[in-house]
Amino acid sequence: MPAYTIGIDFGSLSGRAVLADVATGREIASAQLDYPHAIMDHQLPDGTKLGADWALQHPQDYLDVLDHTIPQLEKAVDPADIIGIGLDCTSATVLPVDASGTPLCFLPAYQNRPHAYVMMWKHHAGQEQAHRMTEAAIRRGEPWLERYGGKVNAEWYFPKLLEILEEAPDIYHAMAHYVEAVDWLVWQLTGRQTRSAGCVGYKTFYAGQFPDKSFFADLNPAFENVVEEKVSGPIVPLGACAGRLTKQAAERFGLKEGIAVATGNIDAHVCLPAVGIDGPGKLLAIIGTSTCHIVMGEKAVPVPGMSGVVDGGVMPGYAAYEAGQSCVGDHFHWFERTCVNSDLRAEAEEKHMPVQALLTEKASQLVPGESGLLALDWWNGNRSILADADLTGMLLGMTLQTRPEEIYRALIEATAYGARVILDAYRENGVPVDAFYASGGVAQKNALAMQIYADVLGMPVHIANAAQGPALGSAVYAAVAAGVYSEVGQAARAMGGVKNAAYEPIPENAAVYEQLYQEYRRLHDYFGRGENDVMKRLKALKARQMNA
Amino acid sequence: MPAYTIGIDFGSLSGRAVLADVATGREIASAQLDYPHAIMDHQLPDGTKLGADWALQHPQDYLDVLDHTIPQLEKAVDPADIIGIGLDCTSATVLPVDASGTPLCFLPAYQNRPHAYVMMWKHHAGQEQAHRMTEAAIRRGEPWLERYGGKVNAEWYFPKLLEILEEAPDIYHAMAHYVEAVDWLVWQLTGRQTRSAGCVGYKTFYAGQFPDKSFFADLNPAFENVVEEKVSGPIVPLGACAGRLTKQAAERFGLKEGIAVATGNIDAHVCLPAVGIDGPGKLLAIIGTSTCHIVMGEKAVPVPGMSGVVDGGVMPGYAAYEAGQSCVGDHFHWFERTCVNSDLRAEAEEKHMPVQALLTEKASQLVPGESGLLALDWWNGNRSILADADLTGMLLGMTLQTRPEEIYRALIEATAYGARVILDAYRENGVPVDAFYASGGVAQKNALAMQIYADVLGMPVHIANAAQGPALGSAVYAAVAAGVYSEVGQAARAMGGVKNAAYEPIPENAAVYEQLYQEYRRLHDYFGRGENDVMKRLKALKARQMNA
Repeated sequence: MPAYTIGIDFGSLSGRAVLADVATGREIASAQLDYPHAIMDHQLPDGTKLGADWALQHPQDYLDVLDHTIPQLEKAVDPADIIGIGLDCTSATVLPVDASGTPLCFLPAYQNRPHAYVMMWKHHAGQEQAHRMTEAAIRRGEPWLERYGGKVNAEWYFPKLLEILEEAPDIYHAMAHYVEAVDWLVWQLTGRQTRSAGCVGYKTFYAGQFPDKSFFADLNPAFENVVEEKVSGPIVPLGACAGRLTKQAAERFGLKEGIAVATGNIDAHVCLPAVGIDGPGKLLAIIGTSTCHIVMGEKAVPVPGMSGVVDGGVMPGYAAYEAGQSCVGDHFHWFERTCVNSDLRAEAEEKHMPVQALLTEKASQLVPGESGLLALDWWNGNRSILADADLTGMLLGMTLQTRPEEIYRALIEATAYGARVILDAYRENGVPVDAFYASGGVAQKNALAMQIYADVLGMPVHIANAAQGPALGSAVYAAVAAGVYSEVGQAARAMGGVKNAAYEPIPENAAVYEQLYQEYRRLHDYFGRGENDVMKRLKALKARQMNA
Repeated sequence: MPAYTIGIDFGSLSGRAVLADVATGREIASAQLDYPHAIMDHQLPDGTKLGADWALQHPQDYLDVLDHTIPQLEKAVDPADIIGIGLDCTSATVLPVDASGTPLCFLPAYQNRPHAYVMMWKHHAGQEQAHRMTEAAIRRGEPWLERYGGKVNAEWYFPKLLEILEEAPDIYHAMAHYVEAVDWLVWQLTGRQTRSAGCVGYKTFYAGQFPDKSFFADLNPAFENVVEEKVSGPIVPLGACAGRLTKQAAERFGLKEGIAVATGNIDAHVCLPAVGIDGPGKLLAIIGTSTCHIVMGEKAVPVPGMSGVVDGGVMPGYAAYEAGQSCVGDHFHWFERTCVNSDLRAEAEEKHMPVQALLTEKASQLVPGESGLLALDWWNGNRSILADADLTGMLLGMTLQTRPEEIYRALIEATAYGARVILDAYRENGVPVDAFYASGGVAQKNALAMQIYADVLGMPVHIANAAQGPALGSAVYAAVAAGVYSEVGQAARAMGGVKNAAYEPIPENAAVYEQLYQEYRRLHDYFGRGENDVMKRLKALKARQMNA
């Protein structure tokens, strides 16, 4: 008897859904919706201006994704054979809601208030709050800090919440709960507020318990009771069934009432089962607008700059390490938006090619080192071993003959060096990395980038079979939640997989990249470790001048 | 009785001519021709490929300028009232000719040979030869070296000539003379080969005499007799009459036979009389594709990184110092060519504005420091105090919100910091700079840039009155050569001048730029003085990989 699960991945710019066969993982149907409001980083829908480093989303966009995609998936099969649904979302994408779960930004009184919207992962305006949390945690010797790479990132849950308290106290007091977007969506489907163990573990300083009240009071007296006041719902493990689809939701989406809704999860973490990873040593890089690097280890040890290590964070029995690069595909989009000249666009039009494809073609004709360029991939800060959102991008080596495709290639190379820094950090700290898997849009579409990664890392790059890795991963968790498999590893082996052909390193390229990587490391340390804090001073000046 | 002189300026991309009233300097007429071959930096007209760092011109373009512009000027007056002609050209723009003065590249046997063409100032492929000359001069304790800032620049006369000897020995041996472009043009008008004292003094290690033969032999045994074999013609002083217009030239151009042809000069140096500078302490920056900074002092003292100091190099009685920035307007053109996206172009079209004007408008709305960006202006190396053509550009501070106009402004600011480095070097070495004058295309057209210069330098910026500063300057020298004035200073006071309104520094901007300038200086020294030679290593790798 056929059985299917739905997986829906809420990314940075769109929601993507698949319907998967629970026996094989085969994708039966897929659907996608670009968020109507995209990322709001300059203004709200009503024109209210946003400050520097803001990045918001609109929760209505998430509901639109559900309404738009689920009915499309159902056309392919008998909806009665759909036995579960799993969701994932970008991590530490958080919103304030009232007691009924209604986002404050839906209420007329708050529609012109930036702090009432979803702060997405790359919202960095709470950097000052994050600094203070790091400083207080170090001063107080908080034991959880080393699990988070020794530094609090502005992207996480509590810095964002403290930012709201200090900048918009009325919104802080008006919210009943401060919830992860994916937990909010599960709540919409099940009628039950829960918290995903994955989200809680990675971004909220939770390792069996939250930090003591005195830590929060130390930051701001009004923040003392934040956990009991704003953090709500039971913690549910990964692979579990968080609840059952309500009658109302079943009717709205044309599904069976009572089917399993899996514990929500982080978009990156759900991808490991989707490529068939069922244990330690196999690192998965999910390369999209940003990259998450996740690898399981036998036990949790501190690794500098990782975003978190959580026991059972991907599947029970293993410690799951997460590290991240905050800007990868975003780099390339920035470049295309900002630096692609109209000659190149005209040539692309004439050849009936997307600009990105033409750029890639031209960049592919270069050999390593030929451009003379070197970049630091910090356009969106560094959230890997430096864990510092105040770092900014750098490019050097330009001459009057430098062409756009050379800059484009240098940006790809920089993200590959950034990935290697992370692999080196895992290995240097006793977490083996024996194989490299890649998933996400860049991995699927950009063969040039993947060959460069193989050359820079000096190891084969295996590519996820599924075009929509996170969505398939969520469908795998849904299959476990629905009881088809007894544990996630078993489901991963049955439903996940990679393409037959991997990208293999080319020895002569690898040799040149070894040399360039050493140059990258030196500049990485010079600008990133305090030898010359010019990036931070410029960023501070920028903030002062924008407010002047 | 009315009298006029013609001044013609041979720039990097075009020739510009003016007809000036010798009594007042008033511009009666002007004409211009863009070089048909522009700058050849990728290939010769027949498709022969050029290597990295090549930059050639075609001497036919210079003749086309004469043919095109002089007849246009003559329409405005009675040609019989034109009493002199003066020429200037970019400096150390040099070509090999046969005994009759015919450029080798005009001969069929050499038309596909890159070394037979005009190597323009920014041809940098002889960097290795320049390094060896510096090294040999230091080792031998050559006394002339300190007059050239302690370092030999690849742009100068002898490195280019040694490059030809070593890379294309047949061309070296086939040439009868190796001549400055401006001396070659004077030769075409007068039928007499001379050498401008200005060109000789600044770029050929000449201070009363050339280096000893043993210096040249030390570089390459076949180079021992280079001076007697390739350097020809009497040296003629500035302001003098180099010769009289031949009958043949008079007929070709419709001028009177026998009128004065002034000693040719460097494009930058002729501008000082054009703004009315008649003595020491007043620095003129000629800001075009590149910038020359020239100031007269009471006597010649060494200043690190200056391109040269020559007694009587602008007018008799004073030492004339030259320093340069090798890439200024070229920066902005590179940016426009490489980084201006099509949205910006579409907006410019819609508003019926040139793209540059729209960029400037948008960049003008930013306050100092607001972009968070900082650049090193080394897209074409550094020919000021670091005197190092192997340095390359750098830009840092980019975020995902960085917009093209912010990068554009950062490039302008970087060139202003570069100018300040030069002013500081003059002052620190005992050459007073009390006033700042600006001439050239950027000075005339880019009010934003000039305000930034005033703010960064902390002093008023006076703008040349004449739109074509060098051409007017050449007309001033022609008036002296024709005997209207007894010396250049007197002619400068009569014919030169600046606009009434100067750009005044804005105190609050100057304060921010002081801070940014300190950041620039630190990175300047880090990348430019050996602390991290990454730019040079990347450039060496680039050369290897391009040949691989």
